[in-house]
Amino acid sequence: MTKGTLYGVSVGPGDPELMTLKAVKTIERCPCVASPQTAGEHTLALDIAAQTVNLEGKELLFLPFLMVHDRKALEKNHRALADLLKCRLDAGTNVAMLNLGDVAVYSTFAYLMDILVGDGYPVEMIPGVPSFCAVAAALGTGLTAMHRPLHIIPAGGMSVDEALDLPGTKVLMKTGKAMPAVKRAITARGLTDKTMLVQNCGLPNQNICRNFSEADDSISYFTTMIVKE
Amino acid sequence: MTKGTLYGVSVGPGDPELMTLKAVKTIERCPCVASPQTAGEHTLALDIAAQTVNLEGKELLFLPFLMVHDRKALEKNHRALADLLKCRLDAGTNVAMLNLGDVAVYSTFAYLMDILVGDGYPVEMIPGVPSFCAVAAALGTGLTAMHRPLHIIPAGGMSVDEALDLPGTKVLMKTGKAMPAVKRAITARGLTDKTMLVQNCGLPNQNICRNFSEADDSISYFTTMIVKE
Repeated sequence: MTKGTLYGVSVGPGDPELMTLKAVKTIERCPCVASPQTAGEHTLALDIAAQTVNLEGKELLFLPFLMVHDRKALEKNHRALADLLKCRLDAGTNVAMLNLGDVAVYSTFAYLMDILVGDGYPVEMIPGVPSFCAVAAALGTGLTAMHRPLHIIPAGGMSVDEALDLPGTKVLMKTGKAMPAVKRAITARGLTDKTMLVQNCGLPNQNICRNFSEADDSISYFTTMIVKE
Repeated sequence: MTKGTLYGVSVGPGDPELMTLKAVKTIERCPCVASPQTAGEHTLALDIAAQTVNLEGKELLFLPFLMVHDRKALEKNHRALADLLKCRLDAGTNVAMLNLGDVAVYSTFAYLMDILVGDGYPVEMIPGVPSFCAVAAALGTGLTAMHRPLHIIPAGGMSVDEALDLPGTKVLMKTGKAMPAVKRAITARGLTDKTMLVQNCGLPNQNICRNFSEADDSISYFTTMIVKE
C-alpha cells in the first residue's frame, strides 16, 4: 500500500487569520490531524487551527512531547511519537501535523521529520509566519536595517553579552529565567531605548512594551524581545 | 477628514497560497493597492497577490523604488513615495501596500512606514511568511537546532568569515556578487555537506541544491543559502 504523506503544517503565531491559504487547504484535505501536546503549551496549535478549519469527522491525534533536557529521554519520546504517526501513514492516511509559528523554526515537527524521512516516509513542509514576525508587526517596527544582519537567539543559545555584541538586530526568544541577566546587560549598555518586547503575542493576554525601562520583572516564558542597534 | 490607514501587507515568498487569510482580506477591503516597482524585481508582490485576490476596480499605485547605495538619493526617493501614499490617505482612502516575504524583514515598506508614522498617519503591519522559511520548506529541512541561534545575513552584512564563525545556523541571503568569496570560505572550512541553497524559491525557475559542491557558479541574486553547524 502507498504510504500516506506527513505534512508539517505551520499555523502561525496565534491569530487564526495568520494561517496561510495553503495551511488551511492542507488540513482540510487530511483525514488525520496531529497536534503537539505539552504540559505548558497545551494544544495551542490545534486551538488556532480549529478557529479556521472545520475539523469535524477528522481523527485528532495528540502527540505528548516531553519537555526535558535529557537527550536520551527526548530521543526515546520522539521515536515513540514517530511510531504513532507511522501507524496512520502505513495505512495510507495523510496526516497534517500542526505547528505553532513556522515549522522550520524551533519546531517540534523537525525532530519527527528527521526520523520519518530517514525511514523512507514522504514528508512535506508548509511554511508559515514565525512568531518574531508577528512580534515586529504588533510593535509596528521593522526587524532589520538595510544590509544589516538579524539574529534569532533562544534562551541558552549564546551568552547575553555575546548576543548583544553582534552587529544588526537581535531577537531574544523565550528569555524567561535568564531575564534578570538580560535586564542587567541591556541597562548597562544603555540599550533600554532600543529594546522592545511583547509577551504572549497574538493571545488575549498580549502585552506590549516599547521601551525596556517600562518592563516589569514578572516576564513570562512567551516573551520575545527585539534589541536594535 | 479622518485619514486612511496604510496597511503593510506581506504577500509571502512567491507561492500565492502562502498568503495569509488576513493578507487576502486586507487587500480585498482596501480600494487602493500600492505595489513596489523596482528595475530588478518588477512588480513581483503584485503578481503574487493578483493570483489570489480580485483586484478589479481597485486603484493600483506603483511605487518606483530606487535601487542605489547613495543614502541621500534613497531618502529623497522614500520621501517622494511617502507623499504619493499621503495623497490617498489624506482623502480618507485605506491603502494596502504589498511586500514580498514578510513586511518586517528587509522590506521596502519599513522605510515608508517610518516616515508616515512620524507624520501622524495610522499604519498597520500584516505579518507574513519570510523567504527563508519557504527556502527551508523547499529543502525539507529545519532551520534551527534545539537552543541554538539562527542568523539571517544579507550580502554585505558581515564578512563571510565572521558569519561562518557564529554558533548555530547561518542563512546567507542575496549573496550574488559575493559568491566566489563565500564558495572559497565554505570549501576551506569543509562545510560543503552542511550547506544547501535554493535559487528563485517558489518561482517557476526554482532550483534546489542540497549539497554545495553541486552548486554551479552562475548563481543569481535571489539565492538563499543555509549553512548548518
